[in-house]
Amino acid sequence: MLTKNELPACPVATMVELIGNKWKLLIIRNLLAKTSRFGELKNGIPGISQKVLTDNLRSLESDGLVARTAYPEVPPRVEYSLSELGNTLRPLFKSMEEWGNTYKDSLGAISEF
Amino acid sequence: MLTKNELPACPVATMVELIGNKWKLLIIRNLLAKTSRFGELKNGIPGISQKVLTDNLRSLESDGLVARTAYPEVPPRVEYSLSELGNTLRPLFKSMEEWGNTYKDSLGAISEF
Repeated sequence: MLTKNELPACPVATMVELIGNKWKLLIIRNLLAKTSRFGELKNGIPGISQKVLTDNLRSLESDGLVARTAYPEVPPRVEYSLSELGNTLRPLFKSMEEWGNTYKDSLGAISEF
Repeated sequence: MLTKNELPACPVATMVELIGNKWKLLIIRNLLAKTSRFGELKNGIPGISQKVLTDNLRSLESDGLVARTAYPEVPPRVEYSLSELGNTLRPLFKSMEEWGNTYKDSLGAISEF
């Protein structure tokens, strides 16, 4: 986890540093919907490789946004979920959803005329 | 510009497809603050190369989010600004700013105890 002094002064740059890549954004989108196993995440994010999913999950864990829970079962079960801090991302993702719809509506408006 | 049918069904994935990389997010952050020349953007985004800035500006232009205005002066002056559609990103970036501050405050809380 980065310390406060290692983060950029700008809060937008802080957000970009922590989750500003395609894969992290899609992983968080899926974890906001539900706690998931590795395979569920991999299947739910088209195009992601095992290595890229592993690396990004580790980075999100290290930054305190994702929690990894291992259940001592046979076979072992591992689940990923958003931490309390990760859950504070919900309003931001709501804004992303709203903007994605705004953009799509704007294309609809263009094609109608 | 992609057509509506080429975009992902999920609005978050649409947003990710259009602006989900570090550089585009930082370019838009700067253009929300002010219309800028190429050199101003380059200086305002530490670590960005000329090629990466050019490529991302072209992509944002092609998706209708950024407008490029060339003034027929000597020497020629070119300015980049957000289009009307690009300006609809303002509430999303406000959410990013708020979340960046939330994250930083959470680190402050950890280091105090």
